Amino acid sequence: MIIILRPDCGKPQIKALEDWLHRQGLHTQLTVGDSGIVLGVIGDASGVSAESLLAMDGVRGVHRVQEAHKLASRRARPQPTVVEVGAARIGGGRFCLIAGPCSVESAEQMRSVAESVREAGADMLRGGVFKPRTSPYAFQGLGAEGAELLAQAGRHAALPTVTEITDVSQLETLRQADMLQVGARNMQNFELLKALGRQKKPVLLKRGAGATLQELLMSAEYILSGGNGQVVLCERGIRTHETATRATLDLSAVPVLRELTHLPVIVDPSHAAGASRLVEPLALAAVAAGADGLMIEVHGDPAHALSDGAQALTPEAFARLASKVRALRECLEKTEAER
Amino acid sequence: MIIILRPDCGKPQIKALEDWLHRQGLHTQLTVGDSGIVLGVIGDASGVSAESLLAMDGVRGVHRVQEAHKLASRRARPQPTVVEVGAARIGGGRFCLIAGPCSVESAEQMRSVAESVREAGADMLRGGVFKPRTSPYAFQGLGAEGAELLAQAGRHAALPTVTEITDVSQLETLRQADMLQVGARNMQNFELLKALGRQKKPVLLKRGAGATLQELLMSAEYILSGGNGQVVLCERGIRTHETATRATLDLSAVPVLRELTHLPVIVDPSHAAGASRLVEPLALAAVAAGADGLMIEVHGDPAHALSDGAQALTPEAFARLASKVRALRECLEKTEAER
Amino acid sequence: MIIILRPDCGKPQIKALEDWLHRQGLHTQLTVGDSGIVLGVIGDASGVSAESLLAMDGVRGVHRVQEAHKLASRRARPQPTVVEVGAARIGGGRFCLIAGPCSVESAEQMRSVAESVREAGADMLRGGVFKPRTSPYAFQGLGAEGAELLAQAGRHAALPTVTEITDVSQLETLRQADMLQVGARNMQNFELLKALGRQKKPVLLKRGAGATLQELLMSAEYILSGGNGQVVLCERGIRTHETATRATLDLSAVPVLRELTHLPVIVDPSHAAGASRLVEPLALAAVAAGADGLMIEVHGDPAHALSDGAQALTPEAFARLASKVRALRECLEKTEAER
Amino acid sequence: MIIILRPDCGKPQIKALEDWLHRQGLHTQLTVGDSGIVLGVIGDASGVSAESLLAMDGVRGVHRVQEAHKLASRRARPQPTVVEVGAARIGGGRFCLIAGPCSVESAEQMRSVAESVREAGADMLRGGVFKPRTSPYAFQGLGAEGAELLAQAGRHAALPTVTEITDVSQLETLRQADMLQVGARNMQNFELLKALGRQKKPVLLKRGAGATLQELLMSAEYILSGGNGQVVLCERGIRTHETATRATLDLSAVPVLRELTHLPVIVDPSHAAGASRLVEPLALAAVAAGADGLMIEVHGDPAHALSDGAQALTPEAFARLASKVRALRECLEKTEAER
Repeated sequence: MIIILRPDCGKPQIKALEDWLHRQGLHTQLTVGDSGIVLGVIGDASGVSAESLLAMDGVRGVHRVQEAHKLASRRARPQPTVVEVGAARIGGGRFCLIAGPCSVESAEQMRSVAESVREAGADMLRGGVFKPRTSPYAFQGLGAEGAELLAQAGRHAALPTVTEITDVSQLETLRQADMLQVGARNMQNFELLKALGRQKKPVLLKRGAGATLQELLMSAEYILSGGNGQVVLCERGIRTHETATRATLDLSAVPVLRELTHLPVIVDPSHAAGASRLVEPLALAAVAAGADGLMIEVHGDPAHALSDGAQALTPEAFARLASKVRALRECLEKTEAER
Repeated sequence: MIIILRPDCGKPQIKALEDWLHRQGLHTQLTVGDSGIVLGVIGDASGVSAESLLAMDGVRGVHRVQEAHKLASRRARPQPTVVEVGAARIGGGRFCLIAGPCSVESAEQMRSVAESVREAGADMLRGGVFKPRTSPYAFQGLGAEGAELLAQAGRHAALPTVTEITDVSQLETLRQADMLQVGARNMQNFELLKALGRQKKPVLLKRGAGATLQELLMSAEYILSGGNGQVVLCERGIRTHETATRATLDLSAVPVLRELTHLPVIVDPSHAAGASRLVEPLALAAVAAGADGLMIEVHGDPAHALSDGAQALTPEAFARLASKVRALRECLEKTEAER
Repeated sequence: MIIILRPDCGKPQIKALEDWLHRQGLHTQLTVGDSGIVLGVIGDASGVSAESLLAMDGVRGVHRVQEAHKLASRRARPQPTVVEVGAARIGGGRFCLIAGPCSVESAEQMRSVAESVREAGADMLRGGVFKPRTSPYAFQGLGAEGAELLAQAGRHAALPTVTEITDVSQLETLRQADMLQVGARNMQNFELLKALGRQKKPVLLKRGAGATLQELLMSAEYILSGGNGQVVLCERGIRTHETATRATLDLSAVPVLRELTHLPVIVDPSHAAGASRLVEPLALAAVAAGADGLMIEVHGDPAHALSDGAQALTPEAFARLASKVRALRECLEKTEAER
Repeated sequence: MIIILRPDCGKPQIKALEDWLHRQGLHTQLTVGDSGIVLGVIGDASGVSAESLLAMDGVRGVHRVQEAHKLASRRARPQPTVVEVGAARIGGGRFCLIAGPCSVESAEQMRSVAESVREAGADMLRGGVFKPRTSPYAFQGLGAEGAELLAQAGRHAALPTVTEITDVSQLETLRQADMLQVGARNMQNFELLKALGRQKKPVLLKRGAGATLQELLMSAEYILSGGNGQVVLCERGIRTHETATRATLDLSAVPVLRELTHLPVIVDPSHAAGASRLVEPLALAAVAAGADGLMIEVHGDPAHALSDGAQALTPEAFARLASKVRALRECLEKTEAER
């Protein structure tokens, strides 16, 4: 950690600062130059709050040399993590196509959609049973009954399943799910993250609509530091001033996260777009940007879906998309290999 | 609810739409004019998803005539709600000054700060014991021990207390607190909101950094619809492109919420500013904008605070601020009365 | 235009509203239903300000049935516009690769970079001579001398050229350029847009970092309504709370604009990324999203560029990118054809 | 300037970096410590682009010790600048109330509004004659005729006038105006800023809706470095994800700018609010935050205004606001003096 002091910072202030750092078991090294005064901090400063430092007299800037996301960092672990969900693999060159409805609604709906996405080439089945809805009056999901329907449909189509968990208490109800999703609204529900770090199922962690990529990595760090290394990150759009789409899909997240972490990164274009006709171009763009997978909403009858129907693809549209994704991946691998 | 159809919307599409609405127990009224086609929906449409409607062929726009936040709406209840927390009152002309440290750290710290803020005129004592921190390696709060220290300090200084709850399981540990705070990161932790709706303590609900005011009201609706009407809303800054402050304090939230809801609205300038020297001007601005209260971070030794020291006022600075707030409120009440 | 009135809107308010609209040569049609009161407006309401209407007593919402961007609208002109710049074509299936340095610096630099990008497959040469810089102390461009160097390099390599215009007075100095660019900061410099509408050169209009897509279309409308139909739109990133990139590239702009307008849409990944290593994945993503072209910064010696070196590709990196772009386009066209 | 190098930065990279800086007439000082490698730069580095440095191999961070806004900086000039506009004074404790319609519409309108705002206590008269409108089909202002009407109304009511300039070519037409305003959309129209730096009239510079405060200061620097020191900054709201208001008024801009610059800072609550009923609370909040003035839209008949009627106050509402502003200022001065 490097602390840059104000040009007018006096000796007593410097002394107070050094003393405070020493009390925390750190060593310091002062350099007074014509261009400014710099205090180098030697030791593991990950527990030191940059904000507390900035509160002290004379401090102008604080610069961390080590990344705050220790376990998620690519430096700590250069090889990409491959997350295993049943027979599916995500990361390290393995692409994963996750598809299914926003909400589990009925046995028939799930069975039918699971079959059709399987046929189209999906690797995993998604379906929500605990739905975080802005309004308390909106459909809140089928809960335990839905969890059972999702599991049945997954077994029927031989697809591993992923579903959202919104509270620690749901862990038992969701025991049949192969992967647990933390939604955008719960990205900083740290008690939930800690609980998911203590169990063994892989976790799909979505970026909050108002979160930075650094914060996404720190939320992943909560799970990793709890002992669960099976984490997949998911970009799903951030909230901006643009109103033509529900959220602004930030595809630069894919290459930026690739540099910073060994964890796989997938993209959910459905929620960002908020309109089914935008899903295909955004999905293909995510693949071209280097995503390790896609999560796509598919519904047999979008107009009658109990939630988010506007953004769901029909099974036919999904099959066309899946075929294009395969062609695109082949093309990209070929051009990469030729290089 | 009024549904605006596309000019090229055909009869079969209109029929499908009407049928769907009728199946949900609603009546419809079609108007075909030169300026467009409009479908009026008669009945309680609060359970109908605008998004599902927008997904249907031929629908161009959906306009709710009734507000989605039924219980929180000022129309439903024109008189302002006054929330009671011990001897403190918030709303309906009663101003509440909440002060205390970001984190509870020790008995001595709490006793001392409680006394000094009480003397300066604070109405309530704040202090965090479960701290939602971006990093898992940062100080996470004293938990149960901290809850006890906060309660002792509150009793000692005869101030009601408020502290943040980050998970349903903490309800028992926080039983001595007089008010429970839902932090910005948990504003859409709906399971927590539902649990707080089922208990009786008043709730301080902070706006998420990426949330709209409409979403804040819908989160309040979760608590209200559970049976707990004692909710105070809190503006604490939203995330924007500006980096000079930690968050952009949105003071228009105060008059906008005043129009939309009967619930009290307070402002936390400390977290938005992220720097103690900006707290006073923003606090005074919040009072002038009509806030029902302020929540201010105060620490006896900000430079050594375990969290968020950069934004904490010293007890002396808080006393000066409290005195200015009183003068300002008197002035505003006088000019209002003269009018 | 459809005006939705408040449920408590009285007869005198409705009368005042109707009178005001009639005075502007419009007809009205009132519908009073159980679900609300709706006033339909018949006639060309494009000159009526929705904001003025919203200021009137009793008005709750205003909904335009016709798009405000009349000439730029795809409804007005379903066929895609193909913009011709020298031998280059943009739009309607014709893809255009624009490359070159941020700033024109010397004859040698331009000659060398023009040759190398031409060889790699670029269709047009870019280079700034009037540089809009945040700081008045930063390099402001070579002006007239630079314009001459750009033109020479373009002729030498047989590439049409594009350069930014920042004021009407530069039209004469830039007479040799084949296309004029309006930068993000000038997207709503309406006097400049009007002047460009009165002349004949094609215009490359960049989206402002704080602008919506609707505003971008309205700025294009300024040029089109002046008589110049040769406009290409360019997405280059919007400003958000994310700080890992200079701007957040909004690739949903490509399919959204495709629906709304017949004008070609290209993408500039260099400025959004702000870092050369992010350019390739974002460029490929833009192609997959359906962009009609790319604008890429290329510099022979990025570390010594006078502006924006951090985001410039070397000629070698550009050649690799151009080759991948071609492969990707072929793949996409093939899958589209098979469909 | 302090450059922080990557821990793995090798000797040849350091050498290349030092050579590049030396070629620009700067001296360097290298410190290799256990906590990292730091390169101090000695000399005036204001012409060096931090971005170019970040593009070089091995550079991790760049930290300016001197502010980039040299002339606008409070360090360069600790005393507040007082801008003189006719008899009005802005800054250094002198508060300025600017009022008038969005657009100049007629002689009668201007005469009437000028009289009423003068009577209510306004110090300056505003009125737009060149209107930057999102749509080319919206009212664009009366131009030269409007400029004459504004000047007449100002003389009649003995109020100095301010009006927006949108292009250098309008300088002659606006010669009677006492102050020229640069609107939010032109904040980075650098050619306009340069031209305003070369003339003598005071300038009211509005913050762009997507601009940071640092960029606002750099735009002011363009005017100052041209030789015109009479610049007033104006906060008028930034664009965020919130849609309840037209823009989010960022009142922290007032204390933040106060620290960074000696230039006066005023606030325009009308454009941010977009609704007249929000103007008063936001105006009072701006005063409490320490603003040097307010700019308020006032129209004799808001519902029939040719632009922005929704946010205009009636003369009566303005008189009430002006009276409250005076009471509030007195109260704040008194509490400040007592302190």
